[in-house]
Amino acid sequence: MEAYLDNSATTPLCREAVERMNYALTTCWGNPSSLHSHGIAASELLEESRSIIANKLSCESDEIYFTSGGTESNNIAVLGAANAMKRRGSRIITTSVEHSSVEESVQYLESQGFDVIRLRVNENGMIDERQLYAATNPSVVLISIMYVNNEVGTIQPVEFANRAAVHAGASNALIHCDAVQAFGKVQLKPYNMGVDLMSISSHKIHGPKGAGALFVKKGTRIAPHSFGGLQEGKIRPGTEPLPAIAGFGAAAAALPDYTHSLHHAMQLRDYMLSGISAMDGIAVNSPSNALPYVTNISVLGIPSEVMLNYLSNMGIYVSNGSACSKGHKSRVLKAMNLNEARINSALRISISRYTTKEEIDYLLYGIDSAQKTMRKLK
Amino acid sequence: MEAYLDNSATTPLCREAVERMNYALTTCWGNPSSLHSHGIAASELLEESRSIIANKLSCESDEIYFTSGGTESNNIAVLGAANAMKRRGSRIITTSVEHSSVEESVQYLESQGFDVIRLRVNENGMIDERQLYAATNPSVVLISIMYVNNEVGTIQPVEFANRAAVHAGASNALIHCDAVQAFGKVQLKPYNMGVDLMSISSHKIHGPKGAGALFVKKGTRIAPHSFGGLQEGKIRPGTEPLPAIAGFGAAAAALPDYTHSLHHAMQLRDYMLSGISAMDGIAVNSPSNALPYVTNISVLGIPSEVMLNYLSNMGIYVSNGSACSKGHKSRVLKAMNLNEARINSALRISISRYTTKEEIDYLLYGIDSAQKTMRKLK
Repeated sequence: MEAYLDNSATTPLCREAVERMNYALTTCWGNPSSLHSHGIAASELLEESRSIIANKLSCESDEIYFTSGGTESNNIAVLGAANAMKRRGSRIITTSVEHSSVEESVQYLESQGFDVIRLRVNENGMIDERQLYAATNPSVVLISIMYVNNEVGTIQPVEFANRAAVHAGASNALIHCDAVQAFGKVQLKPYNMGVDLMSISSHKIHGPKGAGALFVKKGTRIAPHSFGGLQEGKIRPGTEPLPAIAGFGAAAAALPDYTHSLHHAMQLRDYMLSGISAMDGIAVNSPSNALPYVTNISVLGIPSEVMLNYLSNMGIYVSNGSACSKGHKSRVLKAMNLNEARINSALRISISRYTTKEEIDYLLYGIDSAQKTMRKLK
Repeated sequence: MEAYLDNSATTPLCREAVERMNYALTTCWGNPSSLHSHGIAASELLEESRSIIANKLSCESDEIYFTSGGTESNNIAVLGAANAMKRRGSRIITTSVEHSSVEESVQYLESQGFDVIRLRVNENGMIDERQLYAATNPSVVLISIMYVNNEVGTIQPVEFANRAAVHAGASNALIHCDAVQAFGKVQLKPYNMGVDLMSISSHKIHGPKGAGALFVKKGTRIAPHSFGGLQEGKIRPGTEPLPAIAGFGAAAAALPDYTHSLHHAMQLRDYMLSGISAMDGIAVNSPSNALPYVTNISVLGIPSEVMLNYLSNMGIYVSNGSACSKGHKSRVLKAMNLNEARINSALRISISRYTTKEEIDYLLYGIDSAQKTMRKLK
């Protein structure tokens, strides 16, 4: 028996993505920039994916720029927006619970003279919109807020970013949303959310690693982050990672209606939480209104790595936080003001539309067995 | 009948690359940063590729950093080297025939105050080492020279870069070599060439698009170009494009001894040139000592795009220059001081180890047929 419950780190590929990639690998392997028929066929495959992704975000195809993944999308958006606007203002607003690709990009901008405000979060990992309004002034050039948190599943009120900017007369402010963990799982319409730039990634929705996209609202100007060919409107130069983009498109096309998957995730999450509440010594770190795909718990007294190893040996795969911060202590849980004991024993359980009740049962059995074994050892 | 002769733009994938990618797509799909067994298996696949590439460059595995492709490798190297060294000097030396990802990166650095010297080339596309020595002084922080030119196949004497730097006492100078078109086709030992940074790409050696690598000589410090996770020594943060990297490794492992392929390429190139010399009105733009994989010719009086379309309709695929500069006039041929007529009718024919004599015959037939048809029309 196996239970893969680390879907926020990466997901197994869906059949549709593998098939479309094989078409790109064996038949449609041309360079989309080539002017002959192999190039034209490759370019059509690229545009097919672009149109699928645009459709999923209810935007136009020419507002979608393909990248090599979520980290590159976040870098292009954050650095590009700040650098394009730097003569018009110097304040950047973000949160204390962003992914490292946003947090470290703003750290770099801070070292270049930008004035960075990181909104604090409450014990639910939620920002306070009054704090957002208070921080927003006409010198704001960028507000970057993650939609669904990758470690605890908290959903931020991203739509307040644009409202705060309008309210403060911050006419130069661009709104960026890291929606990597939200894409495919909630309704995602950047236009309705007042968002100018939105990052999404393929390998979180059962597509391959190596592709992502950045929504750039028509008319939005960002400074280039890298240089070279004419591809992707020069926002992301270099030969497109076509096999991965084809897989990304196919995985996006295969996404079922989000309400259907959400219902499934909610049932499994509630089932898991009721099982956990029957055990001793486990604290739940995710808020009750978190997106049900991500649940963070602490098995008090058992260090995350120890538990993770124990479970991995049983074929149960969870994580202790963001894969991109491999082994480091969680900034997110710290920002939520959890105590050291909770942080050191945190586990992130992240499910997908393919997760089964049997996998949750096996997880509960695994945690129970770990607790019994390890508490006995003490 | 088909003849794919645009291998400098991209190559069809070899069987070995497709197979290894399918292993990554269907079995080994974990996130290499995850601490459980799916992560460990993915990490092993990543390191397998790294070790293969390192072996091909006669360097250590920890000197190889995976990227999403040649353009990203060039950006990381050029921007990273210049930014790391900017307090120590301001001169950058490069050539007038670089790929756009190097040329536009140095243009950006120029706009930031760097003093950029572009070495001129002669009618063979070759730099003059005396000019290189004359331009090198102690304020040089970066010398970036392409090894094999992507449009005409000229091989530059890259080893002179380090010698010039040593001679001029330019102790801070880092030497970068864009070896994207050279990898797998010539002996490539960055240590022997006095190179600190070397860019290579997967999709030029029958691997997939979406992976590349940068050799960074041990002890070389470059400033980060993008920000985020801990992957690839923070030189290229973000989840690794593992399927493409696995394919890259497999394609590199499948490379035959370069002397064997070179012999094959030379025979085909000579056969083609003798066929071409029997036709009227064709000028050869590549020098006679070019790497035989790339041959640039001008079918005088027939615009490149017209010829390209004619041939494409027959199933013969060539290009009019770099795919990354889609449709734009060649900077390389201009730098070689060719006249407008030659530039406007230029065709790049690029072969691979899989190219056959029958394909060359078909190309010759196609060019002859195009000439007859179009000259008649005039």
